[in-house]
Amino acid sequence: MTGRGHLMTPGPTPIPPAVAAAMAEPILYHRGPEFRDVLARVLPRLSEVFRTRSPVVLLTASGTGAMESAVANLCSPGDRVLVVSAGHFGERWAQIARRYGCDVVELGYEWGGIPDATDVEARLAESGAGLVFCTYCETSTGVVADVQGIARRVKAGGALCVVDAISALGALPLETDEWGIDAVVSGSQKALMTPPGLAFAAASDAALEKARASTSPRYYLDWERALTAQDDLRNPFTPAVSLVRGLDAALDLLLAEGLEAAWGRARRLGRACRAGVKAMGLELFSPDDDRSVVVTAIGVPDGVDGTAVVRTLRERSGITIAGGQGPLRGKIVRIGHIGHVGLDDVAAALEGLELALTELGVAVEPGVAAASARDAYEQGVTV
Amino acid sequence: MTGRGHLMTPGPTPIPPAVAAAMAEPILYHRGPEFRDVLARVLPRLSEVFRTRSPVVLLTASGTGAMESAVANLCSPGDRVLVVSAGHFGERWAQIARRYGCDVVELGYEWGGIPDATDVEARLAESGAGLVFCTYCETSTGVVADVQGIARRVKAGGALCVVDAISALGALPLETDEWGIDAVVSGSQKALMTPPGLAFAAASDAALEKARASTSPRYYLDWERALTAQDDLRNPFTPAVSLVRGLDAALDLLLAEGLEAAWGRARRLGRACRAGVKAMGLELFSPDDDRSVVVTAIGVPDGVDGTAVVRTLRERSGITIAGGQGPLRGKIVRIGHIGHVGLDDVAAALEGLELALTELGVAVEPGVAAASARDAYEQGVTV
Repeated sequence: MTGRGHLMTPGPTPIPPAVAAAMAEPILYHRGPEFRDVLARVLPRLSEVFRTRSPVVLLTASGTGAMESAVANLCSPGDRVLVVSAGHFGERWAQIARRYGCDVVELGYEWGGIPDATDVEARLAESGAGLVFCTYCETSTGVVADVQGIARRVKAGGALCVVDAISALGALPLETDEWGIDAVVSGSQKALMTPPGLAFAAASDAALEKARASTSPRYYLDWERALTAQDDLRNPFTPAVSLVRGLDAALDLLLAEGLEAAWGRARRLGRACRAGVKAMGLELFSPDDDRSVVVTAIGVPDGVDGTAVVRTLRERSGITIAGGQGPLRGKIVRIGHIGHVGLDDVAAALEGLELALTELGVAVEPGVAAASARDAYEQGVTV
Repeated sequence: MTGRGHLMTPGPTPIPPAVAAAMAEPILYHRGPEFRDVLARVLPRLSEVFRTRSPVVLLTASGTGAMESAVANLCSPGDRVLVVSAGHFGERWAQIARRYGCDVVELGYEWGGIPDATDVEARLAESGAGLVFCTYCETSTGVVADVQGIARRVKAGGALCVVDAISALGALPLETDEWGIDAVVSGSQKALMTPPGLAFAAASDAALEKARASTSPRYYLDWERALTAQDDLRNPFTPAVSLVRGLDAALDLLLAEGLEAAWGRARRLGRACRAGVKAMGLELFSPDDDRSVVVTAIGVPDGVDGTAVVRTLRERSGITIAGGQGPLRGKIVRIGHIGHVGLDDVAAALEGLELALTELGVAVEPGVAAASARDAYEQGVTV
């Protein structure tokens, strides 16, 4: 491998030096005053990042643990729920809900499809579901759903709206309370610039009320148990104390920049990446619009295996991007541009991609990708 | 706070510099070849530490997540299970099992009681339970159960034996296969010298067969899903990659020392701590025998509040020990001596305890604790 190594996947993402430094501090006792001080800083700022007045449940888990917590706390066996799915992570909602005995109605789009809020409205009315699960950024395809529009229609339809914002939080505008979203789940390893291992669930009063009535078994993922402890600046179980300290440092950085500024930076990086891809003559798989701020999915030219592109890029340039999942395996590659990454990283990834594709025999427009990306980033206009 | 700060709780425990250094390395993509190399080293060595030929499920969770995984994978609603409990963590088994709809028969001892294998045998025969949950080291009291004897009787009684070895693994002799234990759960933040956030479950063939028939809902904690991915050096969900790298470095250290040597070191530190406590004229709450290697629980003299002892020790000497939980709150204090701690740490804790107690008006024998601890450690004989 050459180069210092660029991690350009849509998660985990690289972490800032201050986060690494915080995690290298001596281990704190989770019940001692120093760690309580950390929680006193982290918990309210998580609510700030989620744009909610509700408390945010802090879990030591992957993002999927937070997704399962939403199902386990909000559903009882036999409940009819509507799942909006257009890729790997939407399908995960359906899998989890089925595992909990829910009567799952799926509004399924093909991978890469863009969920439509009016489809959700119609399907909700037809199904009589009491809960709707959807995905803000479907990381497997790069498609970003209009969760504001979906949440409004779900609320109007009398149901609760649950959003997977695992890769979206901190990168895409999200107004949990203002948009009337009842539960939002996320994770530490995306735009929050912290290693994987922490997951979050924000729950509205209505969601917490529903949780009190749910009969699904849960203990480790129980929201009420977590929130009762958090009220007292505790965790019910030994949390990943080093990761929580890293998150504390990451929140310092994110909120010093400002959430809106971070959203704007992600938007400009998305524009830059798409401009570079198009300049090279490649086809975008993810939509060419300003919602595509988390990950740029690129169609691999016919006759080329996407996994070979990922491997060549890594071996030749030390740059790690992601391949396609499920039916898109080998057909797309995905460049993530959230978290602690900048224009130089996106430019390096594009140049590495050019080199890799050329080596694999694909004729791409040489030497233009990085410059186009820079122009798009600096102009700050939609490309 | 004075001093550099000693963490002397029974978890989380201090981590070696090599573990901190490994975790400060750049974040790896969990699906890339470098992280697969990490898993290829970690997974078989976890089995080695558990002394089992079975694979060990690697979870991103607190130890309680691994406990819940045992209940969720092994039990179906209505199953009769026997829980052996003599403190906080034994009661946790019962709480989780009830939450999953099990018909829980509890063999309950008072906090500080020592479970007896013949009691387990009798209660198992009487109850007809198919599963027995027990705790190797009950960290809330310092009591270590004879899980070898319990497991033998549970097997003879035709049931499966599940052991919480969260604080025991790496400190107390544990022979999962040889002793016929069907499932053992543990965590990273105790004798494995890694921060909290990783949890483990070793499951025998019989346990995995039972898991296939269990109808309890689970997704994130599902053993089969995890093991199928691990067979291919993957995780089903984004794992806490930095913690896994830390664990990799910790396993290097632990296995270079040798498991038996680590058990011996823990035993000598336990002897040292008990000798110092007794020399001071204090009463041991945990048993004064060579099983007490994880944590030494000390009765707080009448008229003194244990929480004040913990606070004074921290504020005066920078040493963090644990107080009592549940009914023992204020009545005992607990010095942990597992993980990356040595005789100097135990001596410092004892000297700090002497200072704190003196300040709180307790007459203790001055100046003898550390020397007695050193003697006991160096003689390597039972005190």
